[in-house]
Amino acid sequence: MEALQIIVAIFILALASSLTFASDPSPLQDFCVAINDPKGSLFVNGKFCKDAKLAKADDFYFSGLHIRKNTSNTFGSTVTPVNVAQMPGLHTLGISMVRIDYAPNGGLNPPHTHPRASEILVVLEGTLHVGFVTSNPDNRLISKVLYPGDVFVFPVGLIHFQYNIGNTYAVAFAGLSSENPGVITIANAVFGSNPSINADILAKAFNLDRKMVKNLQSEF
Amino acid sequence: MEALQIIVAIFILALASSLTFASDPSPLQDFCVAINDPKGSLFVNGKFCKDAKLAKADDFYFSGLHIRKNTSNTFGSTVTPVNVAQMPGLHTLGISMVRIDYAPNGGLNPPHTHPRASEILVVLEGTLHVGFVTSNPDNRLISKVLYPGDVFVFPVGLIHFQYNIGNTYAVAFAGLSSENPGVITIANAVFGSNPSINADILAKAFNLDRKMVKNLQSEF
Amino acid sequence: MEALQIIVAIFILALASSLTFASDPSPLQDFCVAINDPKGSLFVNGKFCKDAKLAKADDFYFSGLHIRKNTSNTFGSTVTPVNVAQMPGLHTLGISMVRIDYAPNGGLNPPHTHPRASEILVVLEGTLHVGFVTSNPDNRLISKVLYPGDVFVFPVGLIHFQYNIGNTYAVAFAGLSSENPGVITIANAVFGSNPSINADILAKAFNLDRKMVKNLQSEF
Amino acid sequence: MEALQIIVAIFILALASSLTFASDPSPLQDFCVAINDPKGSLFVNGKFCKDAKLAKADDFYFSGLHIRKNTSNTFGSTVTPVNVAQMPGLHTLGISMVRIDYAPNGGLNPPHTHPRASEILVVLEGTLHVGFVTSNPDNRLISKVLYPGDVFVFPVGLIHFQYNIGNTYAVAFAGLSSENPGVITIANAVFGSNPSINADILAKAFNLDRKMVKNLQSEF
Amino acid sequence: MEALQIIVAIFILALASSLTFASDPSPLQDFCVAINDPKGSLFVNGKFCKDAKLAKADDFYFSGLHIRKNTSNTFGSTVTPVNVAQMPGLHTLGISMVRIDYAPNGGLNPPHTHPRASEILVVLEGTLHVGFVTSNPDNRLISKVLYPGDVFVFPVGLIHFQYNIGNTYAVAFAGLSSENPGVITIANAVFGSNPSINADILAKAFNLDRKMVKNLQSEF
Amino acid sequence: MEALQIIVAIFILALASSLTFASDPSPLQDFCVAINDPKGSLFVNGKFCKDAKLAKADDFYFSGLHIRKNTSNTFGSTVTPVNVAQMPGLHTLGISMVRIDYAPNGGLNPPHTHPRASEILVVLEGTLHVGFVTSNPDNRLISKVLYPGDVFVFPVGLIHFQYNIGNTYAVAFAGLSSENPGVITIANAVFGSNPSINADILAKAFNLDRKMVKNLQSEF
Repeated sequence: MEALQIIVAIFILALASSLTFASDPSPLQDFCVAINDPKGSLFVNGKFCKDAKLAKADDFYFSGLHIRKNTSNTFGSTVTPVNVAQMPGLHTLGISMVRIDYAPNGGLNPPHTHPRASEILVVLEGTLHVGFVTSNPDNRLISKVLYPGDVFVFPVGLIHFQYNIGNTYAVAFAGLSSENPGVITIANAVFGSNPSINADILAKAFNLDRKMVKNLQSEF
Repeated sequence: MEALQIIVAIFILALASSLTFASDPSPLQDFCVAINDPKGSLFVNGKFCKDAKLAKADDFYFSGLHIRKNTSNTFGSTVTPVNVAQMPGLHTLGISMVRIDYAPNGGLNPPHTHPRASEILVVLEGTLHVGFVTSNPDNRLISKVLYPGDVFVFPVGLIHFQYNIGNTYAVAFAGLSSENPGVITIANAVFGSNPSINADILAKAFNLDRKMVKNLQSEF
Repeated sequence: MEALQIIVAIFILALASSLTFASDPSPLQDFCVAINDPKGSLFVNGKFCKDAKLAKADDFYFSGLHIRKNTSNTFGSTVTPVNVAQMPGLHTLGISMVRIDYAPNGGLNPPHTHPRASEILVVLEGTLHVGFVTSNPDNRLISKVLYPGDVFVFPVGLIHFQYNIGNTYAVAFAGLSSENPGVITIANAVFGSNPSINADILAKAFNLDRKMVKNLQSEF
Repeated sequence: MEALQIIVAIFILALASSLTFASDPSPLQDFCVAINDPKGSLFVNGKFCKDAKLAKADDFYFSGLHIRKNTSNTFGSTVTPVNVAQMPGLHTLGISMVRIDYAPNGGLNPPHTHPRASEILVVLEGTLHVGFVTSNPDNRLISKVLYPGDVFVFPVGLIHFQYNIGNTYAVAFAGLSSENPGVITIANAVFGSNPSINADILAKAFNLDRKMVKNLQSEF
Repeated sequence: MEALQIIVAIFILALASSLTFASDPSPLQDFCVAINDPKGSLFVNGKFCKDAKLAKADDFYFSGLHIRKNTSNTFGSTVTPVNVAQMPGLHTLGISMVRIDYAPNGGLNPPHTHPRASEILVVLEGTLHVGFVTSNPDNRLISKVLYPGDVFVFPVGLIHFQYNIGNTYAVAFAGLSSENPGVITIANAVFGSNPSINADILAKAFNLDRKMVKNLQSEF
Repeated sequence: MEALQIIVAIFILALASSLTFASDPSPLQDFCVAINDPKGSLFVNGKFCKDAKLAKADDFYFSGLHIRKNTSNTFGSTVTPVNVAQMPGLHTLGISMVRIDYAPNGGLNPPHTHPRASEILVVLEGTLHVGFVTSNPDNRLISKVLYPGDVFVFPVGLIHFQYNIGNTYAVAFAGLSSENPGVITIANAVFGSNPSINADILAKAFNLDRKMVKNLQSEF
């Protein structure tokens, strides 16, 4: 019996320290610090919690958002997220943050949606052309040029973008109304999915010829 | 004073019978039959309610979903919605329905999202290739060929489509988890917005040349 | 130590593949495919999730809803549900579906409530008299005769029914605003509970004599 | 013009002081004191709010719950509610209260559901047999005899009752998780609806003969 | 292999009967009886559920709320809670209850907030001065003297108190709109936190000299 | 009759352009731009919406958050909010933002709660000691010193503060999970309410003598 007790005790410790759990939306306690582990085998909607007694300041902390990020990539922009994956204390709190860096002369955060969050963005440096498109049937583009200190909001689920139209670096910070907002980059999801969407579907939907679709798919 | 009372009384009647109102999410009463009016000047999130005492069976009723719809259009498909705009009794109840007709040999309900609803679809006739794409970074396509009696679900906010790969008409019915799910047809919102999105943005996002983008924009 | 690691590893696999878990309401991720096991010993509100990387199209799929069901039973009706118990991918998505078959000349889906969902129903075949009753103090019956293509909505928590008044089979499909709507068949819950409700209570509540109540209870 | 301004001003005052409005679920402000008027013609899901600056202590106040109520009625019980209809300050706060008085020797709060609330009940005087029935397929009766100081909870949407099995008056207080919980007294909704449910339906559902159903309907 | 199966079986039983779990907000099933264990190592937002088949009446039951509590303590008041920690069946049901006893001549339930619940209170005995303070910028005190049978509501998150201004014992019962409302006693949280808040902060915030703050902190 | 129609038309215009309305939580449409008017007499929980067709980019826009604010005030800090009162397009979107400026050497955002939001804060300049206190019974202080680029989260409803411990100006931006989070500055609500809380209550709650309480109340 004692041997089993030891095994059980070890297992409980292993479980507490090594599983990727997931959990849930609105708070039922002061906070629920998320716990994660790549070897984990139990999952819930969101994350499991750490024992509240063991929560410490570092669970509610993240650093490095003052550092300019490298924007030498396809779109000339880099998003640095601070959501529940980076800051476990965000779990169940319905909020997260991102820093976005844009290369000069065309750095682009391309058209995308957040399926689970609205986003409020403030420009710190540079000049951004930003916009979102309303749903059917109007598909109205609501856009604005933003300068440092300007704030704009992108409603939940709508397609939106930011584009650096200045000749200097641009930086923005944004708050999002979920600890795990999700991102769907439209072009990547449509032309770069894995496996690919049937090219006939995309040709018809986007009014492109099939060969062009195939080319796009090979590039994404 | 009496004249004013009459004016006020007439106004109240006019208000009750003629304004487009809007209202809210979870029920605080048995039901809230929506009221609408093209001359309306007051709006809320959703709709205003009809006096519950005046609610009648027709407020919870809609007809004609058995009729095959004409699919002679660009995409070869027609969506017939039954949401709060068509059935005012749906207001606050978090549910709606659609019928979708697909032309033979390629009728397509093109890639789109519902920002406020998940969708469960059952095939009545025909053979549909359906799928949805997960969010970043995986952008995994989860797809299936469906036959009559098959059911599939598209999670809230994700890009999804249905495509008639058979040589006969196809028909599906679907339930959606909102009385006003919203629809964002990706290609239309991106290439057909009003006004247009800056062509440089779309060229970069979709890896297309600027001229091609301009062509696409002129066609949508 | 190695032996323990093996034990732990085996346990984790066993846990992942064999427990009945339960989980939660609004999405915190793209989807959360439910996992179940009759031997399971851990439960949450709803279900646990499958590892998202292992989700496959069949998790979002169900078949057979085109088949006419046998209605040779007490009420002359059969409900075929497609909720999270049948389609694990529905978990956290707030939607489900049912097919209902009604025998000719009086097939009845008897008075019942869904404690967690509103229901939108479309008639495919036959002629149904449907209705729901509002809460106290009015207890107003709102009813309608429905023909193929007609749609009707039953608000969450209210007592409702469908009754085949035609001399042919009837079939309806319905969407429900929860992945686990629950069903309370009024007569069964009241007269057929296990153990039985004290007959004096039911006699007084329904204005029946005690012997009649006892008879009813023995039959349900 | 001045005359019109006066009319408009008077109307605005009239509107603010005299209309029956309705409103919504979770708070977006400290509180929203409901306003009502039998002459009102505008309705929302819930109630409209009073100007927050004019809110006063009496809006959050109700008196008289210490008084024993007359229980000389059919069921031998009286429910005294304190919900948003009696205490306008409850609006958007998701809570309400009731006092229930039971006659000695069989005072009954008959089987009913609250479509929008769970209920926690504490017994102050007397001896109550209380219970609720779970949903299909189990329809399990979970019941208990309660004495002064005992507390019991009835989950949202489930059929429940309280029955005075003592030979003295009984009194209970209960909290409910909605400012407008709604009540559906099963027997009244089923046999006493207005208009009546088709007697064939009830005969089949409750396994009663048609004549008995007609009798019951005439009595409710 | 058999030995391992036994170990796994024992562990599963141990897990089911001995871990402190936590879980989630709105119901996805009839009820979710919470399970707890001081040795537990798995936590979620709220609690885990007991197997629904094993739920029994005692899970929904609590006793002893009729007993006058000792109020010989610093504030002259005692709160007896009935929330999910005392009654596991409350889990996911969004409701709980408290009994509050107040010593004669100044028994005080000191200024506090409930971060997750509104509270409706009924006075059973005695005379209570009660009040709450609105948020910035008005900080309006809304207060009232309550006598037996009087009811008052304290909106979610606002600072409130009850004070026995009579020369007899006072007793109140209250319903709260969460199964785990949380309590933040202002003075304790501010002057009695562990570790202490920097005295300079409290001196500045409360306009006290640093020494006074240090004194207060040593006393709490 | 025509005169009345004119009156009604004028009134409708006046109503649409001049009333302070209020409205509701989760979106039922793409967005709901709030409308306000100091003369308004109709209120809901939140705000009324502008006609969606008239929404323009400026409704989703705010400027000036790059400007250092004057911190020559009692606490040496200034909060510049961007919530639904400043940016009407935030309505129903569940998100808002603030800029906070802190004077060197002790600029303090004093202990306060947000009854309706969690807050994620990023430091742009300076050195902040920040912290929050958990609810009863632990009242644990969780605190950290933050430098530029550091991020911290304050869970909904908990008492928290930020304190400039550096000798330079400090600046932070924060996202909040509500369009109208509310602020309760503890010392102001407790000692500066209008009218004042009975000094005996505060003396007992804070362990201060009555005269000291009176002094504090006269100063706030």
